[in-house]
Amino acid sequence: MIKVGIIGATGYAGAEIARILLGHPDAEVVWYGSRSYIDQEFSSVYGNFFNIVDDKCLDDNMEELADKVDVIFTATPQGLCASLVNESILGKVKIIDLSADFRLKDVAVYEKWYKIEHKAPQFIEEAVYGLCEINRDKIKKARLVANPGCYTTCSILTAYPLIKEGLIDPDTLIVDALSGVTGAGRGAKVANLYCEVNESCKPYGVANHRHTPEIEEQLGYAAGKEMVINFTPHLVPMNRGILATEYASLVKKDGKLPTAEEISKAYEKYYGNETFIRILKDGIYPETRWVQGSNFVDIGFKIDERTGRIIMMGAIDNLVKGAAGQAVQNMNILFGLDETAGLKLVPRCF
Amino acid sequence: MIKVGIIGATGYAGAEIARILLGHPDAEVVWYGSRSYIDQEFSSVYGNFFNIVDDKCLDDNMEELADKVDVIFTATPQGLCASLVNESILGKVKIIDLSADFRLKDVAVYEKWYKIEHKAPQFIEEAVYGLCEINRDKIKKARLVANPGCYTTCSILTAYPLIKEGLIDPDTLIVDALSGVTGAGRGAKVANLYCEVNESCKPYGVANHRHTPEIEEQLGYAAGKEMVINFTPHLVPMNRGILATEYASLVKKDGKLPTAEEISKAYEKYYGNETFIRILKDGIYPETRWVQGSNFVDIGFKIDERTGRIIMMGAIDNLVKGAAGQAVQNMNILFGLDETAGLKLVPRCF
Amino acid sequence: MIKVGIIGATGYAGAEIARILLGHPDAEVVWYGSRSYIDQEFSSVYGNFFNIVDDKCLDDNMEELADKVDVIFTATPQGLCASLVNESILGKVKIIDLSADFRLKDVAVYEKWYKIEHKAPQFIEEAVYGLCEINRDKIKKARLVANPGCYTTCSILTAYPLIKEGLIDPDTLIVDALSGVTGAGRGAKVANLYCEVNESCKPYGVANHRHTPEIEEQLGYAAGKEMVINFTPHLVPMNRGILATEYASLVKKDGKLPTAEEISKAYEKYYGNETFIRILKDGIYPETRWVQGSNFVDIGFKIDERTGRIIMMGAIDNLVKGAAGQAVQNMNILFGLDETAGLKLVPRCF
Amino acid sequence: MIKVGIIGATGYAGAEIARILLGHPDAEVVWYGSRSYIDQEFSSVYGNFFNIVDDKCLDDNMEELADKVDVIFTATPQGLCASLVNESILGKVKIIDLSADFRLKDVAVYEKWYKIEHKAPQFIEEAVYGLCEINRDKIKKARLVANPGCYTTCSILTAYPLIKEGLIDPDTLIVDALSGVTGAGRGAKVANLYCEVNESCKPYGVANHRHTPEIEEQLGYAAGKEMVINFTPHLVPMNRGILATEYASLVKKDGKLPTAEEISKAYEKYYGNETFIRILKDGIYPETRWVQGSNFVDIGFKIDERTGRIIMMGAIDNLVKGAAGQAVQNMNILFGLDETAGLKLVPRCF
Repeated sequence: MIKVGIIGATGYAGAEIARILLGHPDAEVVWYGSRSYIDQEFSSVYGNFFNIVDDKCLDDNMEELADKVDVIFTATPQGLCASLVNESILGKVKIIDLSADFRLKDVAVYEKWYKIEHKAPQFIEEAVYGLCEINRDKIKKARLVANPGCYTTCSILTAYPLIKEGLIDPDTLIVDALSGVTGAGRGAKVANLYCEVNESCKPYGVANHRHTPEIEEQLGYAAGKEMVINFTPHLVPMNRGILATEYASLVKKDGKLPTAEEISKAYEKYYGNETFIRILKDGIYPETRWVQGSNFVDIGFKIDERTGRIIMMGAIDNLVKGAAGQAVQNMNILFGLDETAGLKLVPRCF
Repeated sequence: MIKVGIIGATGYAGAEIARILLGHPDAEVVWYGSRSYIDQEFSSVYGNFFNIVDDKCLDDNMEELADKVDVIFTATPQGLCASLVNESILGKVKIIDLSADFRLKDVAVYEKWYKIEHKAPQFIEEAVYGLCEINRDKIKKARLVANPGCYTTCSILTAYPLIKEGLIDPDTLIVDALSGVTGAGRGAKVANLYCEVNESCKPYGVANHRHTPEIEEQLGYAAGKEMVINFTPHLVPMNRGILATEYASLVKKDGKLPTAEEISKAYEKYYGNETFIRILKDGIYPETRWVQGSNFVDIGFKIDERTGRIIMMGAIDNLVKGAAGQAVQNMNILFGLDETAGLKLVPRCF
Repeated sequence: MIKVGIIGATGYAGAEIARILLGHPDAEVVWYGSRSYIDQEFSSVYGNFFNIVDDKCLDDNMEELADKVDVIFTATPQGLCASLVNESILGKVKIIDLSADFRLKDVAVYEKWYKIEHKAPQFIEEAVYGLCEINRDKIKKARLVANPGCYTTCSILTAYPLIKEGLIDPDTLIVDALSGVTGAGRGAKVANLYCEVNESCKPYGVANHRHTPEIEEQLGYAAGKEMVINFTPHLVPMNRGILATEYASLVKKDGKLPTAEEISKAYEKYYGNETFIRILKDGIYPETRWVQGSNFVDIGFKIDERTGRIIMMGAIDNLVKGAAGQAVQNMNILFGLDETAGLKLVPRCF
Repeated sequence: MIKVGIIGATGYAGAEIARILLGHPDAEVVWYGSRSYIDQEFSSVYGNFFNIVDDKCLDDNMEELADKVDVIFTATPQGLCASLVNESILGKVKIIDLSADFRLKDVAVYEKWYKIEHKAPQFIEEAVYGLCEINRDKIKKARLVANPGCYTTCSILTAYPLIKEGLIDPDTLIVDALSGVTGAGRGAKVANLYCEVNESCKPYGVANHRHTPEIEEQLGYAAGKEMVINFTPHLVPMNRGILATEYASLVKKDGKLPTAEEISKAYEKYYGNETFIRILKDGIYPETRWVQGSNFVDIGFKIDERTGRIIMMGAIDNLVKGAAGQAVQNMNILFGLDETAGLKLVPRCF
């Protein structure tokens, strides 16, 4: 049984890790870390765990934790993981960091977009970007996994095969995305109150959202060159889900646009054997409810012959494939388990 | 492996049975019956099942079905099950009926409240009311289980121990209940459109909702006498969940009201060993989100010394413990399986 | 033109006063008081007022304010109005207090339920309880109006005529009520975050909500005796609206229950000429959306011959008739204006 | 007093016209046409109008209606207005058609996108496209006004000045839009049931939504050339509101991108005197709640120096500026009234 510690267990992503691991055959949470609720019962924060989890919340002492568990999930704000991690800890446990601390390879880019100093730049090089379907082999050998952002997971996977295969022009990529409100976290802010969010939608972080460089870096690897994109997130009134609608100009061959069949083939080539990526049938577009509560990524597309562009659409549950589910998937890979262990979650569409 | 057929698989309760059974170790659905979608893929109706369920929808031929499966769930409108069932079918398969056809023992009461003629009154006597925690022993031997209504499951279980123990006066019981909109079914009615339901709540079926006689009959058995209650359901803008707030006058002993401890003891006596009933701690009241997606019933209470009344509060997920989950629980009992098989669903509170 | 000052203009009730008064022919807001946003534009807090209100927020200096305006609305937490008001201020301006400070006539009851010391008990006696339809004449002459609570406005008006006429037994009254989330205010609390409230409902303040003594006091005047009731509020996921479902035993005359006609007559007697109270037709029950954004109170009822009880149902918009609208109605009465001035708001049901 | 007839009064747009005109000083509805509810009280369909509107619903006899009213609003599905209108009717009354029948100048384009035969192509030429801020002068003299679509109103107005001034490249325009569910109408379809829409969002009509040619035609006039764009609508779980996020490459002058100041100036030039268009301050982006219930269009923008694109964002209430409000604004223009009469609706953000 793999022993798991969660730092940040009472945030939405942390609590989702706890929920998922309750159904995992080979792992169990033994440390519910939550600085704000130390010594309080975890189930007093989340009543759904009443009679299921009896543990009390503990602090975020990573040194102590490293001696007690096999893997640590850090589901905390940017900067915390980098401030705690060290060689001694990494010698003892695997770390799966759900924050952005180790996602970007260029520390200057990190510091520019996140506006904080990086406290452990020496580990950036070895950290593996945990986008499972793309980096599976590297993840197997990692000590430190940088779990991708929610928007980024969805945005990258939706466009990846077409960029990799040169079917779309990377310079034209525009990602317009919608997110449910759990994405904003559990902090007590007026902007996230029920009556401020309900019955409205809004763009935010326009042209400067922090997931932008992460998408650019990863898709840039696929493109084989630096990419600069537009990414616009929107908040919509629902608990969960991300929907990315992505636009790009198709690359003509011999004066002709690629056909729908060619596009499908490209998706099939990269994702045909992937359990968690579902390529939707022709004319079917993703809806966030179809993936709700599950680790699936649903992808559909439409070629617009009139404009020569393709519209790619992807949906995930931001807390599962966009956070806790992918983190567990990374754990499964790290420990050589069946990659789907604990993740055969049937989406619940209502 | 128990072979399962669902009649009405594309309704909300039917689809929920399908979802739950995908996680059941000993049962599998082999017949997705849906008159409206015959020959269409089940996953074309509910995209969440894409790549998970490949079956097409079949008709509702119960005779044919009886030869192919071990148990039939009828998740259909009132009257259908009674019109299809017969001795030959009951000789071959177990039937768990999610409609009201076999819930009421008095056919006249059924016909008065449901305003339809009962087509199979000869089976009413033998049908067992499938409220698992109360009728477990009778269910074991049944051929035909009448799965309780959603409001009734919640309303009965919340008050049962206190009535059984004579702690409250049955004549004073008032049940005020709230339901999510899945309770209204998937029929295409203007009243259930998003914009008609969203941002509003309303009472309905006031003093004549059909779950009233069902609550009265079952609680009447506990009281040892006929009961007449007030039951007022309300529609609230959420997908799932039932919350029952119940009022009754406490019965004084030697001029004194029962204490909170005595009330707790009564709940403990009947539910102390029940996996799916959670008696909340003192001062904690149920929230529907704490049980969402699970088979739990959460119960809390408050004694009001000023009025001499007790306020009992219970919450369930109307589609799980209030329909599909309890139906599976009944199946488990009927087939001698672990009663919780497939039902260790962790509630998802956001 | 009546000059208006609002203390607490950036709370939900305060902002609603501002919205309503923009359509008032004889009044204008000249002081948007908001301690948290001093010197910031009011429209930077509520973008809906952009290009409509150009004012900046001011502090809550009631002395200064009293020299500048004709009427002050205090839309602030309990205790503030009582701590600011004095004889000199009351000599200059009318005060309409939306907090509970002057609603209860017995200071001991206030201090017991609100758990704070009352700072200006000397004004309790003269303060008029501003339930317009009941206390209109007294309000006309008042200097200090205690604007009723949201739950109380709805609960009292729904039952008042039947208690006044002796048609129901006051000792049996139970009020079960639902509220939208604006009722919880705009404070940054985790419990009111979108994802904590959405897709759930819950009871709270069971048997000890502070609106209880207010309902009891006012209905007690109608009953001609002290009343003790049960009142259970619930939070439901919508922005606005209160729905009160009230139960009471009907009083038999000559062994007979009152008829629906007699009940209707009683409502007609008290409310027949009231613009803002709508007695619904037989068989129609209130829905909060029918009153949304308006000053209406919708009332329906159902006699249950089986139990001898009546179910009374009332709906209001908690921010309008339950707060800002009634406050403006009180202002209209105080200043001898048409009582409906600025309040001919057509409800917006979607 | 202008006499108004509404054909399709019980649809969401029709009911919204009714609501708005109740506050109009110079117009009154005398004919509530609704084929589905003939002889039923209008307020039995929409309880919010109880005690406010006493009329019963009438049929859609346009000939008869033309003799009784000064202006007819047709808030009906495509094809109906074209099938009813004729020279005799247009000789007697003004018609403001909220359907698409007279929006497109090329009947072939209409028939291709709407897939129905146009029954009155002879009136297409004279019909005026009722986008008030752009076509005000033409509207004044019209007999037949084609009221713009909801998505189109928002999409066009958001980009218009920048295209007109040559600041953006028309060939690069991409419109990604979100809509509340009232946009889907009041038809009883499973897809629009509460539980199918709630807690999800989805794209639809990708690359073939019918508002596409309407946007292209109108913006093409501004560009001075034919335009082909991408337009992707999404359904989000809220009653009202449209948010359009639009992307286009900025046109460099002397190798330099336009500055934010230049963009602001362009908006100012076209909308500086417009009551209903609000150019948001730098760094402020529209939220649908800020315009809810009002006739406002809120517009913000952000230049992305990295990509050379501009992100333009516009928000409207789809039922007001996107339908009923603009229709009333057109009526005001047609009859020489103050253009804002009845439309000084303060948005209600919660």
